[in-house]
Amino acid sequence: MTKKKPTILVVNDDGITAPGIKVLLEEMQKLGNVVVVAPDAPQSGMGHAISISKPLRLDKVDIYKGVEMYKCSGTPVDCVKLAVDRIFSDIKPDLCVSGVNHGLNYSINVLYSGTMSAAVEGAIEGIPSIGFSLDDFSHSADFSHIRSYLFSIASQVLQNGLPKGTLLNVNFPHIEKEIKGIKICRQANGHWVEEFEQRTDPYKREYFWMTGRYEWVDRGEDTDVFAINHGYVSIVPTQFDMTAHHAIQEMNSWSFDLTD
Amino acid sequence: MTKKKPTILVVNDDGITAPGIKVLLEEMQKLGNVVVVAPDAPQSGMGHAISISKPLRLDKVDIYKGVEMYKCSGTPVDCVKLAVDRIFSDIKPDLCVSGVNHGLNYSINVLYSGTMSAAVEGAIEGIPSIGFSLDDFSHSADFSHIRSYLFSIASQVLQNGLPKGTLLNVNFPHIEKEIKGIKICRQANGHWVEEFEQRTDPYKREYFWMTGRYEWVDRGEDTDVFAINHGYVSIVPTQFDMTAHHAIQEMNSWSFDLTD
Repeated sequence: MTKKKPTILVVNDDGITAPGIKVLLEEMQKLGNVVVVAPDAPQSGMGHAISISKPLRLDKVDIYKGVEMYKCSGTPVDCVKLAVDRIFSDIKPDLCVSGVNHGLNYSINVLYSGTMSAAVEGAIEGIPSIGFSLDDFSHSADFSHIRSYLFSIASQVLQNGLPKGTLLNVNFPHIEKEIKGIKICRQANGHWVEEFEQRTDPYKREYFWMTGRYEWVDRGEDTDVFAINHGYVSIVPTQFDMTAHHAIQEMNSWSFDLTD
Repeated sequence: MTKKKPTILVVNDDGITAPGIKVLLEEMQKLGNVVVVAPDAPQSGMGHAISISKPLRLDKVDIYKGVEMYKCSGTPVDCVKLAVDRIFSDIKPDLCVSGVNHGLNYSINVLYSGTMSAAVEGAIEGIPSIGFSLDDFSHSADFSHIRSYLFSIASQVLQNGLPKGTLLNVNFPHIEKEIKGIKICRQANGHWVEEFEQRTDPYKREYFWMTGRYEWVDRGEDTDVFAINHGYVSIVPTQFDMTAHHAIQEMNSWSFDLTD
């Protein structure tokens, strides 16, 4: 008797027609039965948003031959929740992969990224999960250099599983950089310096566009930003326990005076 | 010479007219100069979403006497970013407080919550930050029993600061429970079991409403869920470094075979 083929849930945040998800589902088809549930429109920067005050649409679509695909009107996290509750219901997928995102999700971008939040949601649901992102924002990004990595990292996770409460945040260098290898990293500290661009609308009211540049504060050689900048694929084991465990003891020494 | 009064940024996710933010700004006025920047409409469940593909409005409003207030068309995180870049620009607030949320944000709800994401964003910007939430979803929630805690916890943070990269997730029991004290906790593990309710619209197309119940998997007595269930105020020191540091060594033993 042969082993049952694994079931793989593929999601993203750039939308169901993005080239990045096509590359990912093609590689996953070599590993198992693929089901795609992805937003019907781009959802970049949606973080861990969920739709609690509006109804959701979920429609089966036929885009790539031989792949079960659904488009969803909600956020990337909604897609994972709908997949688990409405599409799989009585089974749990063996793997949840998200991406490949057009653009990096290293450092604190793990928080803003819909791609990573979908993978985080997969992990919360108890599914081994991976988010993949490429250093190329353009719609015509070239993913050819990362195909073997998508396959290899996903098959390792299918084989080994992941430590409890852990998922992977994988970022790839741009095609113009020769990949030197894989580095297991920690999330670099940093932040965005926003410069909201002020404009005036045709009705003379002002509005703002968010723009900004990422400021890399933490130059540690064990960080994901360092790895990408030096031509490595970065893998950050990521968790959804946000407790600052080291601070609990210090906080216990505080005294809260309630006489107001 | 007297010490300069601290500047306090007040944000929320329930919107600028929510009763919870009124209670919070009133308590903060006893501690410093308050500036409110809050969404112009409810933004619950927005997580760490940011507006990158649409313009933002920011308008000064006059709601509560003597308080500088702005409503913003974006998400809770947008509010913090706009405040830092456009309203404060040359100074940094001494404190960022978010809430008081109508509804608990314990356990993994830290990820879905706009209230907590605004506080996380404050911390990323290097501002000591606190998110406050009450176990009462209703618009007419009674906040009177938590006023002295808001004041006391905020003044402690102004006095002591917070460990680097750390913010506080504070949850309060419902007014009908007598508060037994404060517990410093870790984030409980758990997840939502979704049951999407299927309906049919007037045009015969189906749609879904997200509903669900929180499943408390982790019964640890040191968790925030345990504290709230037993009548304590829970304070979880929270961080935005999502690295699963303990998993790095294990991951380093993996071998990635790239022969496809």
